[in-house]
Amino acid sequence: MEFRDGMEKRYNQILKNYLNEKDEKALYLGQKFSRKSIEHLVPPEEMISLHRNTVKEIFPNLPKEVIDSFDFLIEVMIGYGLAYQEHQSLRFQQQ
Amino acid sequence: MEFRDGMEKRYNQILKNYLNEKDEKALYLGQKFSRKSIEHLVPPEEMISLHRNTVKEIFPNLPKEVIDSFDFLIEVMIGYGLAYQEHQSLRFQQQ
Repeated sequence: MEFRDGMEKRYNQILKNYLNEKDEKALYLGQKFSRKSIEHLVPPEEMISLHRNTVKEIFPNLPKEVIDSFDFLIEVMIGYGLAYQEHQSLRFQQQ
Repeated sequence: MEFRDGMEKRYNQILKNYLNEKDEKALYLGQKFSRKSIEHLVPPEEMISLHRNTVKEIFPNLPKEVIDSFDFLIEVMIGYGLAYQEHQSLRFQQQ
């Protein structure tokens, strides 16, 4: 299965696993997911959006404001995403 | 005041303002904050940590698990931080 198609389901699994286990192995799955996401050019703001949707699913009774606060973080991370895109194009130029 | 010294207080202000106003101007303050953070080499995982601490302060009764879920997101964003550092050093080499 293509990484992007399955990434929501996978993130849900590994975040739930982390909340249950809270161990190094669970964190390691997060690092692996991060590497795959970067490899597949998932921008950081999309990671935050994925996290928001997953948290919303795991904790359906959270106040709306808590979920809304993620939208602000997404806005902030868009700048980081642009810096990262620039990095990709610099790397491309150097190849 | 140095940006880094005041960034927690500032993020708290602009996130609260966003939650109250939910308008373009409030989002624009987020973009400005993002640019400043990148300029001051604040890594993305530190941004998530800042967001977590601010959310914890604004919503003191959130379940511990919701706050813990940010630790997992921080772990994921560390990979993005490393990619961004690489970008900085590439830019330095090209200057």
